[in-house]
Amino acid sequence: MKAVGVIVEYNPFHNGHAYHLQAAKESAQANLVIAVMSGNFLQRGEPALVSKWYRTKMALLNGVDIVIELPYQFATQKAETFANGAISILDAIGCHSICFGSESGDIHSFLQTVNFLDSHKELFDENIKKNIKTGVSYPKALSLSFQSLSSTENLVGLDKPNNILGFHYLKALKHQKSSIVPLTVKRKNADYHDEHFATETIASATSIRKALFASNENNSPIEQYVPDATSRLLKEYLSDYGHFHEWENYWSYLRFRLLHSSPDELREIYEVEEGIEHRLIAAALDAVTFKEFMQKIKTKRYTWTRLQRICLHILTNTKKAEMKRSGDKAAYLRLLGMTGIGKEYLNKYKSQFTLPLISKLSAYKERDILLDIKASRIYAFGLGNQTREKLLNQEYKQPPIYVE
Amino acid sequence: MKAVGVIVEYNPFHNGHAYHLQAAKESAQANLVIAVMSGNFLQRGEPALVSKWYRTKMALLNGVDIVIELPYQFATQKAETFANGAISILDAIGCHSICFGSESGDIHSFLQTVNFLDSHKELFDENIKKNIKTGVSYPKALSLSFQSLSSTENLVGLDKPNNILGFHYLKALKHQKSSIVPLTVKRKNADYHDEHFATETIASATSIRKALFASNENNSPIEQYVPDATSRLLKEYLSDYGHFHEWENYWSYLRFRLLHSSPDELREIYEVEEGIEHRLIAAALDAVTFKEFMQKIKTKRYTWTRLQRICLHILTNTKKAEMKRSGDKAAYLRLLGMTGIGKEYLNKYKSQFTLPLISKLSAYKERDILLDIKASRIYAFGLGNQTREKLLNQEYKQPPIYVE
Repeated sequence: MKAVGVIVEYNPFHNGHAYHLQAAKESAQANLVIAVMSGNFLQRGEPALVSKWYRTKMALLNGVDIVIELPYQFATQKAETFANGAISILDAIGCHSICFGSESGDIHSFLQTVNFLDSHKELFDENIKKNIKTGVSYPKALSLSFQSLSSTENLVGLDKPNNILGFHYLKALKHQKSSIVPLTVKRKNADYHDEHFATETIASATSIRKALFASNENNSPIEQYVPDATSRLLKEYLSDYGHFHEWENYWSYLRFRLLHSSPDELREIYEVEEGIEHRLIAAALDAVTFKEFMQKIKTKRYTWTRLQRICLHILTNTKKAEMKRSGDKAAYLRLLGMTGIGKEYLNKYKSQFTLPLISKLSAYKERDILLDIKASRIYAFGLGNQTREKLLNQEYKQPPIYVE
Repeated sequence: MKAVGVIVEYNPFHNGHAYHLQAAKESAQANLVIAVMSGNFLQRGEPALVSKWYRTKMALLNGVDIVIELPYQFATQKAETFANGAISILDAIGCHSICFGSESGDIHSFLQTVNFLDSHKELFDENIKKNIKTGVSYPKALSLSFQSLSSTENLVGLDKPNNILGFHYLKALKHQKSSIVPLTVKRKNADYHDEHFATETIASATSIRKALFASNENNSPIEQYVPDATSRLLKEYLSDYGHFHEWENYWSYLRFRLLHSSPDELREIYEVEEGIEHRLIAAALDAVTFKEFMQKIKTKRYTWTRLQRICLHILTNTKKAEMKRSGDKAAYLRLLGMTGIGKEYLNKYKSQFTLPLISKLSAYKERDILLDIKASRIYAFGLGNQTREKLLNQEYKQPPIYVE
């Protein structure tokens, strides 16, 4: 059996994702799709709209055969770390190829870019440092440095978010000496961060979330952009848990945390650097909403995403020491769900997996997974007092989801 | 001018307190009353019903002339530490006498008890240790040890809460070599912890709070037990802030704190000992309410009060190291309010006070007071998102309350 791997967030699963899965399976000539999916918190430092279990159901009902959780230590990080974690999982579970969506759509330009930057590493890194000193953010510095390297080769544009991710997937494959074959499909219309609907059936997850919150979590304006299963599961989540998750729901907890901690304690938190702890505490005193808080702390140097990730690590109390200990490859394969074909694949190949497969949390004792458990518990605090309970204790009770 | 000191919580101020003030002033033949009052959190490890500012107003409108805050580091502690802090403040501010309510009412029996126990200290301490080994709580062990010391002298019964406090006031006076004259008045009818109304006009604060919460914070059932000013201020608090403070309002924050902390971190918190951190984390997973949580963690060894204090220090993130650093005497006199006579007294004598008088928080830089500021901010989290703001920033904005 031949498996193609995809790296996803599905926040929520939409028609563009369905198109990507189909293209991935076809171009890889695969029998099944294995998705590495972020847990309850995402790369932009945000809570997912609905829990990882609901997003797993969406995936399995729409073409994914196996869902493995991308651990918190990778899922909530910059592209390079995110990619390293995801690739290490797809490698360990025996994927033959991976397929990612990109603005470019040309896998050769990605390969050339990785090789080109590897051979110009010193100059490139120096340029980045120089640009950072002018006060811009890291992603901006990277993009500027890249532009300044003139090359006659066919390089991929590292100013687009999915190209950047794809570039890091290929870099991770190379550096991990993985034999996985990389493939890419050109994204249809919608840009990753688009806030407006682009076509009649394809829209970015960002625009879908925006429409959901703008319509008071009423599904109807997004129905044309998502499969029926997504639509139904979103409705079910609302009726089970009361509302979707967004940062505002966590603001009073983050604020509480900031106002009872000392600057020294905050400095132990991952990504809290350069004295930002003082600015965070001062802003927390006056900001009534999370949005207000973010506006108070935003500077040119820090992207919105980076600040949200800092906030998230403070919320989950994730220390520098914990993240450092974890290393840059995953330590386990946490199974969130599977289809019939997925189950067959797991039964047939699991003895060859190079990482332990965890279907039952209580059977696994490694402390790395504590970060995921903690993150899931903290995610539950985004719900009201009444609906919190089920989610709070789900980590140990929920078996992997099975869809025939 | 002759000042008599009282040590109070006023949660809320009731007729029994008015009686105590009158008796104190008379028996001390004093011109004015100085109260050392706990801030927003109290000795039993609970949030006060209403903020210290409202309780200061109640005090000033009912016979107190100066209100000084008993700092968090003393107010939320066992009787001995509580007494040491309070006495050090009354001594520093020049009180001629103190007057406390007690079940005994006989100051000589208190003096004899202090002397008797000082001279039998070794035996007494040994007895306490022996009793603790049987698995009972510290207060129980103390009471049992005391009973086992046979004496022909007139000793005070150390099985009553106000006698115990009084005993510690006298012990503190002796050990601090204070020249303050101790006086006591016999409490009228109501026992400290009584949950039921005892007479037609005097009721314990516990029974008053119980009636308030039982009647959905409607004042009418308690009006006969409190002065008009209390009644009016309680109504005003409800209309300004929405509800009274109780532990349940803080439960989701305490729970959040317990579920994102490691046992190692909790062990740094003051009073977290003997591995109780593991029991706290486990109970937090399942307890939907604070009451449920307390029932899960209660054992014979730990009194309800001690457990509440542990919870409080976790909520406010108060470390062992911070409490240790503070020492057993107060470092400042934080003025919460005064009457005209109180003002006259302060102007006349403040140059002789042995501790700095703080009327404006921003003018005082000692880090000891950070505990009080933090406690006040955390207290604000017991309110809803809308009403929290005013309280959250009151510490630096509120001048001492002045009642002519």
